[in-house]
Amino acid sequence: MGRVTARRRVLRISPAGHAHRADTLAAEEPLEVRVGGRPLSVTMRTPGHDFDLAAGFLVSEGVVGAAGEITGIAYCAGATADGSNTYNVLDVRLAPSVRLPEFSLDRNVYMSSSCGVCGKASLDAVRTEARWPVRDDPLELDPAVLSALPDTLRAAQRVFDRTGGLHAAGLFTVDGSLRCLREDVGRHNAVDKVVGWALREGLLPLRSSILLVSGRASFELVQKAVMAGIPALAAVSAPSSLAADLAEETGLTLIGFLRGPTMNAYTATHRLPPPQPVP
Amino acid sequence: MGRVTARRRVLRISPAGHAHRADTLAAEEPLEVRVGGRPLSVTMRTPGHDFDLAAGFLVSEGVVGAAGEITGIAYCAGATADGSNTYNVLDVRLAPSVRLPEFSLDRNVYMSSSCGVCGKASLDAVRTEARWPVRDDPLELDPAVLSALPDTLRAAQRVFDRTGGLHAAGLFTVDGSLRCLREDVGRHNAVDKVVGWALREGLLPLRSSILLVSGRASFELVQKAVMAGIPALAAVSAPSSLAADLAEETGLTLIGFLRGPTMNAYTATHRLPPPQPVP
Repeated sequence: MGRVTARRRVLRISPAGHAHRADTLAAEEPLEVRVGGRPLSVTMRTPGHDFDLAAGFLVSEGVVGAAGEITGIAYCAGATADGSNTYNVLDVRLAPSVRLPEFSLDRNVYMSSSCGVCGKASLDAVRTEARWPVRDDPLELDPAVLSALPDTLRAAQRVFDRTGGLHAAGLFTVDGSLRCLREDVGRHNAVDKVVGWALREGLLPLRSSILLVSGRASFELVQKAVMAGIPALAAVSAPSSLAADLAEETGLTLIGFLRGPTMNAYTATHRLPPPQPVP
Repeated sequence: MGRVTARRRVLRISPAGHAHRADTLAAEEPLEVRVGGRPLSVTMRTPGHDFDLAAGFLVSEGVVGAAGEITGIAYCAGATADGSNTYNVLDVRLAPSVRLPEFSLDRNVYMSSSCGVCGKASLDAVRTEARWPVRDDPLELDPAVLSALPDTLRAAQRVFDRTGGLHAAGLFTVDGSLRCLREDVGRHNAVDKVVGWALREGLLPLRSSILLVSGRASFELVQKAVMAGIPALAAVSAPSSLAADLAEETGLTLIGFLRGPTMNAYTATHRLPPPQPVP
């Protein structure tokens, strides 16, 4: 089974000299997700929490929303020519009541709609698919609590400590307690692993919770938060324009550049204290 | 036509107070690439240099390798229901001699091979597809030149300055001159834009050149460098295990954690000065 890290010999170059030494890298391996035996997607991910990743991906795509809609997940033995199990292919069995949408092999299924490809169509698709509106979530955000989240996330990132090469997604309560942390070479995978964990624990929708991601916030990450019923997404770095547009359209509070006591709130700012005059 | 940035009103929270102010975000919009009218991929990208992005994507996927293999690229008017042009759909016309592989809509076309999904299969696929072996490239790397590349890239990133939200890819000569810089919300798109520029300028293969990317180096980025004939890839942050594996397999020099005068060379270190004892 795949490992989370890999050891390599590197040539370290610095003003002190050039020397070989051992280094630890974040592992990256492909994962093929099948549904009822039919290939659905291939993603490059860090091995570990693969069942959560597959389950969370299906939540993000609007296929499932409750633990009972998945009847089983298993690695596929015999997926290779020699019949061995690479632990890189898994099959999800869905309850008979679950309707599988017309999937292409493309992750960006929403963007391929026949009405044309544009930001507006992407927003409309997510709004239509979302099971749990986040707009009316009564969550109230405390800037002091938000300020502490990045340090809490970073302190819990055990694999990052060894590799410097993993993104993280953390799910927090309104008072800043970390409920679930996942790390991955892909930020979208880290979020899917968190959401899949919540689905399998019977915790969806994730009302009144806060999702924090390392790095930037793209359209795709806002989509995943909305599809899981999460009303607030915070990112350590910048959001994109379409991420802010989707957050506004759905009523999700999007926070960027969350660094110590400073942050930018882009949308649904009614969940934060109102503007105060600078003293 | 799409813009590179978008303006928004944000609530800025800091110890000095809470206040509304204007902010600039990096634009993100979907782009659908068609070949001969047939949809091939959809990617979220920052508008701009879209023809280069499409051309570079086709180089990365092994479809084309010379400017003459693309006979035309045009935005599709009428891709939406009302017949307007969103500048988010473009069509590439290929020369009759070009064989289009059996594409799925999935970007990760190499990983879907019937022999099973694993890191080894991914490496084999790229090695088989590569037109220009990079292993024998006589490039010699000077650590002093490498040290200066991140500052050169950063200084040329005009959109990042305004948004803090864009990845960058820069193509450099052996003596550290910047030949081409592209920015995008997606690092893989920034690289495709550089490679597509080179294809359309008739510069492929990019022998004895150095590609620098902001952030981390994944399998996909090494793949794109190899497919363009680039013998050296440097990243400001960490590489993944499969990125290092592919670099070793193909003979590409992979450098990570390039920060000032220090860096790690993971593979093909013969292009760098040999280890020296620490004084």
